[in-house]
Amino acid sequence: MSLNFSPSQPCRIQQVPGWDLETDVTVVGFGAAGACAAIEAAGAGAAVTLLEAASGNGGTSALSGGEIYLGGSGGTPAQRQAGFSDETEDLFRYLMMAGGADADEAKVRRYAENSLAHHDWLVAQGVVYKNTFLPERMLEPVTDDCLIWSGSEEAWPFVERARPCPRGHTPQWDGWGGGRMLMDALAARVEQLGVEIRYDSRVLALIADDANHVHGVVVRMDGRICFARARNGVILCAGGFVMNRDMVRRHAPHLMRSGDPIGTPGDDGTGILLGMSVGGASIHMDQAFLSLPFYAPESLLKGVFINERGQRFINEDCYHGRVGYHIMQQTGDRIFLLLDNATYQPPAEFTRIQIAAAGETWEEVERDLGLPEGALVSTVALYNRHAADGNDPLFHKGARWLKPLDEPPFVALDCRVDYAMYPHFTLGGLDTLPSGEVVTEKRQPIGGLYAAGRTTCGLPRWGGGYSSGLSLADATFFGRQAGSSAAKARNRHPADVMAG
Amino acid sequence: MSLNFSPSQPCRIQQVPGWDLETDVTVVGFGAAGACAAIEAAGAGAAVTLLEAASGNGGTSALSGGEIYLGGSGGTPAQRQAGFSDETEDLFRYLMMAGGADADEAKVRRYAENSLAHHDWLVAQGVVYKNTFLPERMLEPVTDDCLIWSGSEEAWPFVERARPCPRGHTPQWDGWGGGRMLMDALAARVEQLGVEIRYDSRVLALIADDANHVHGVVVRMDGRICFARARNGVILCAGGFVMNRDMVRRHAPHLMRSGDPIGTPGDDGTGILLGMSVGGASIHMDQAFLSLPFYAPESLLKGVFINERGQRFINEDCYHGRVGYHIMQQTGDRIFLLLDNATYQPPAEFTRIQIAAAGETWEEVERDLGLPEGALVSTVALYNRHAADGNDPLFHKGARWLKPLDEPPFVALDCRVDYAMYPHFTLGGLDTLPSGEVVTEKRQPIGGLYAAGRTTCGLPRWGGGYSSGLSLADATFFGRQAGSSAAKARNRHPADVMAG
Repeated sequence: MSLNFSPSQPCRIQQVPGWDLETDVTVVGFGAAGACAAIEAAGAGAAVTLLEAASGNGGTSALSGGEIYLGGSGGTPAQRQAGFSDETEDLFRYLMMAGGADADEAKVRRYAENSLAHHDWLVAQGVVYKNTFLPERMLEPVTDDCLIWSGSEEAWPFVERARPCPRGHTPQWDGWGGGRMLMDALAARVEQLGVEIRYDSRVLALIADDANHVHGVVVRMDGRICFARARNGVILCAGGFVMNRDMVRRHAPHLMRSGDPIGTPGDDGTGILLGMSVGGASIHMDQAFLSLPFYAPESLLKGVFINERGQRFINEDCYHGRVGYHIMQQTGDRIFLLLDNATYQPPAEFTRIQIAAAGETWEEVERDLGLPEGALVSTVALYNRHAADGNDPLFHKGARWLKPLDEPPFVALDCRVDYAMYPHFTLGGLDTLPSGEVVTEKRQPIGGLYAAGRTTCGLPRWGGGYSSGLSLADATFFGRQAGSSAAKARNRHPADVMAG
Repeated sequence: MSLNFSPSQPCRIQQVPGWDLETDVTVVGFGAAGACAAIEAAGAGAAVTLLEAASGNGGTSALSGGEIYLGGSGGTPAQRQAGFSDETEDLFRYLMMAGGADADEAKVRRYAENSLAHHDWLVAQGVVYKNTFLPERMLEPVTDDCLIWSGSEEAWPFVERARPCPRGHTPQWDGWGGGRMLMDALAARVEQLGVEIRYDSRVLALIADDANHVHGVVVRMDGRICFARARNGVILCAGGFVMNRDMVRRHAPHLMRSGDPIGTPGDDGTGILLGMSVGGASIHMDQAFLSLPFYAPESLLKGVFINERGQRFINEDCYHGRVGYHIMQQTGDRIFLLLDNATYQPPAEFTRIQIAAAGETWEEVERDLGLPEGALVSTVALYNRHAADGNDPLFHKGARWLKPLDEPPFVALDCRVDYAMYPHFTLGGLDTLPSGEVVTEKRQPIGGLYAAGRTTCGLPRWGGGYSSGLSLADATFFGRQAGSSAAKARNRHPADVMAG
């Protein structure tokens, strides 16, 4: 028997010397996805063991703002209180656009129809929402308020195909970091349901039979190797791979241009590799959320982004992650945000956005930036000409944000990719059914294996469509589906398998 | 024992009822990569069996122009005859740029240093080159000439970092389709070396032990399932996945915008799935060669490409595949090539590029195209102003191709993505070492498994850097490395494995 276990290679069940632990459902990873999976599985009566490599719970979910993208079915309490009704079909259409060319219609449909009920479930677990609405454009509330515009709902082209509604819901929590509050609520519920929680427990490999049906995990626990049987199945909720820069370079090399990954050391791709080791397909591994969090202040949305050729490339009123996606499509690292005296306000310090040039004329700014003669000037002239009429025929920026940049002094903010803050995390991962079952490249379910959260490729799977709250929406909702599916599953008895 | 074999799941060696065939090296796929692998393995004394799913040899290689990207070490006979000396370091730097952000330095180094010797090897196998040079820009020779500029060597930014040299070598063959001649030469050599060739033989699954070491294949042959042992190893040379549109949608969804895949039905991803079934990593699955083959006539390089916002996006003198890559980065399907009376010539009919608008002024053309007022006009004005001075400060197009577009009538060619011809094939696949060994995500070799050609991710791995001849250069050269490595390998005896 080999003692060199690797996530890329399952331990064959014939090699298991005996079970050190037995349970119905094993959940790998105690972030939001794992917590929700454990809650549903335990709530359905399954014996659940939760294995977490770190010494405490939370994972990357606890580092986040805790914002969740919710709506549909007429609207959440926060949406209705703010005067919005949110129809399921509008949420469906928005999420289909947000998923890009390979949006997962089955998952989008299930989520759109059940998002309101999911909100109520979260509240029932102890997540508290103040249900107040902040109409300004911001990253997330710094107060304990709830609802914000957290995507590109009001921006072209989304606004043309889905009636806009704010859908970012943040728990009642003062300041950023509501993810810790979200995790505290979910973790308390996990404990209350009697889930066996094992910290400092790193899963080294899956245990599978010759048909790649999964029966448990090999886990390092208290300094020794344990063979842990999962009678019903294993649920992988072990995060993405953004902290594994070797994997990032091979699968999403454009992310190497930024030094600001968002994650914990656990986001090392292990969950994805475990799934692939038994034939699970990984998809859209090149896709990521990558943002330039340039607002608030929202006045900056009235500026004009240009690349190093002086060309505009995006309607500046769309979500900052979509701006970041399009910045990465530009050739060259130099990106500027042009503003005039009426629109300029200093960006947040943490963005590392600084002033690159200022002048009394756009010609002067263009010269100072060293841009090709006439490039910036002709871009601004064209923008101003149409903005004066309240139009943006190139990128269809909303009228509310259109103002000619004609009040000197003029300024160009330096948003260069190799210096400014471009936080990012990965969106590619294991392909799963809405039930949480991991599937092969031919979309055949792998027996005994489930996954959720950023170990999977879920609702968010295209950088150009990401919206704040989508990753936690996906992790919590499809974590629940996986937990529920695994609780219902009946695995073959390993003795049968061992007998051939 | 299951009779439902799947490429995504290896058959365990314990399940093999007995060997129907035994050989040293099994090569899967009889295109250029498989032929070269078989030649080297057989030449080194190994017993080789070549399994081909189709009824004849050639694969996608035989459909191609047969062009191979060759140079370095002072130059090939064709290069030297045309007055070029091609230094190894220039070839190395060009290929590193062509590989993009995750260029495989080890493979590039090995290829750059051995490319000239590889040329000589090809000639020794019976591939005939006329060694004549055609200086005009073209897709590939329609005559029986040899050497052309087949990449972006003379174009920015490549020209700034590697001394340009033409490197596309086409066999002596009248008209397009030299790939058939190339394959005929290689196939004759395969037969001469006594390789056992089995047509109509589809590999259904790999045979592996519990450590994922590969010992053979399950193959459907003459209507029955056979278990074929490969004592030294299996070499996967089964093409890419461009004809498997489900895989394309999940891994490279932008390709779905074009209806012009290049391949045979065999390019269904089976080779990649087989490798992944034993833990092989697949990388850069989103990358592809996707081209707008808009030249010849080369006069069209003097035009200006714009997107549907009237913006330029590329130096038009770079390789047509790089143009295609940047077209796909633009938002929207509408792409135009602007020309004036002095530069216009009709594009080739097969490109499906038609005239979208013509007029006596650029304002008229802009209006006819329905573009935002001033958008096209300001782009052309800026281009013309600098072109008159012999400059292109935006995209650094070569002076030879710079001419103000100022002689009416003016014309806009319609290159829309959803109508014009955008031929494409996939570049993502199994990660391999220069030796041809397939590796896991952590780059550990998988015992007994090798791969080459478009089943792997090789020298060409970034659409923005593709050059004609790179895929065949990679397939033939690294096919040879895989064959040579497998011939030297000594596998464990399956009986030992079965005994545990």
